[in-house]
Amino acid sequence: MPGGRRAGPTRTRQEILDAARAAFATHGYDAVSLRAIARQAAVDPALVHHFFASKSDLFAAALELPVDPEPFIAALLTGEPESLGARLVLALVELWDRPDGFQGFLGLLRGAASHADAARLLREFVTREILGRLATVAAPDAPQTRAALAGSQIVGLAMARKIVCIEPIATAEPAWLAATIGPIIQTYLTAPLPKGEP
Amino acid sequence: MPGGRRAGPTRTRQEILDAARAAFATHGYDAVSLRAIARQAAVDPALVHHFFASKSDLFAAALELPVDPEPFIAALLTGEPESLGARLVLALVELWDRPDGFQGFLGLLRGAASHADAARLLREFVTREILGRLATVAAPDAPQTRAALAGSQIVGLAMARKIVCIEPIATAEPAWLAATIGPIIQTYLTAPLPKGEP
Repeated sequence: MPGGRRAGPTRTRQEILDAARAAFATHGYDAVSLRAIARQAAVDPALVHHFFASKSDLFAAALELPVDPEPFIAALLTGEPESLGARLVLALVELWDRPDGFQGFLGLLRGAASHADAARLLREFVTREILGRLATVAAPDAPQTRAALAGSQIVGLAMARKIVCIEPIATAEPAWLAATIGPIIQTYLTAPLPKGEP
Repeated sequence: MPGGRRAGPTRTRQEILDAARAAFATHGYDAVSLRAIARQAAVDPALVHHFFASKSDLFAAALELPVDPEPFIAALLTGEPESLGARLVLALVELWDRPDGFQGFLGLLRGAASHADAARLLREFVTREILGRLATVAAPDAPQTRAALAGSQIVGLAMARKIVCIEPIATAEPAWLAATIGPIIQTYLTAPLPKGEP
């Protein structure tokens, strides 16, 4: 048997992942609970918690994202606030450049471009787990607005580097991208916003 | 017959469009000529020029983009250089918001997310007809680099407003988006770049 593990836990974990994928695809990110996934997989909720630290962790595993976004973002928020934009760009680009580090995100983007359900899943996940966490700590006001603006630049950076492959962004050094696009993220997160409602 | 037109020109135009779509999908944007499309459609090259002002015009028609990008960008470049970023954002958002104004661009983005050929088509078209034209006039140096940076934010804005639908960007007033994201485009196009090569 691969890795010498018993079939039981491996199969159980796989059944939880399958149930999670189906639940997220059908109901989006916000409406799904670990308890509902446990019920769907016909396992005890404690078992879900045994395998996965949080909903974001289970989501990342189900969609084959390379890291659990919750600790990833938490680590970024412990550094100097003035360099958050540059550190976020650097960390994301290095993550996407890892072998298979972009596959899960690519799947989300592809799905979102073709299906409203997948777009909602991406929106709810990005808004809650990535942008929401970032902006709540970093933004002096209007956290959702700032998070959306920063998010638009980050999605565009991912498209330019990994999907549309626009040079020099596609092959630039991560540090150069951090120096160039990092200050823009910082502006969106912390500089004064124009007057007036969106 | 719809509009009272004769069948001949309508069918010829359609045959040119079909040949153009096939040629662009197979060979990308740069490698295709109006002459090659005429040959593929089995019509005289003068007929292609009769129906379409330029390669970008034919491309826009074949992919059902709402405007020919060449005069669209040319008009933007005749205004005040200091407000180019804001005017570009305003014009693009108003274009995308028109009924069916986003369908062609959505098709390009969907294709690019799934197929390398479609990604090359989008990359070559955007680089040559949109960003190239913008940056050649607006940028004090490094036009391709500046165009790619601005392009990444514009693609991300399109994703946030029309595909992933991240609030408040999805429903914000176009003027607010111009006031918020316009200065970022302006920065990418005209502000000093960080030292060092990409």
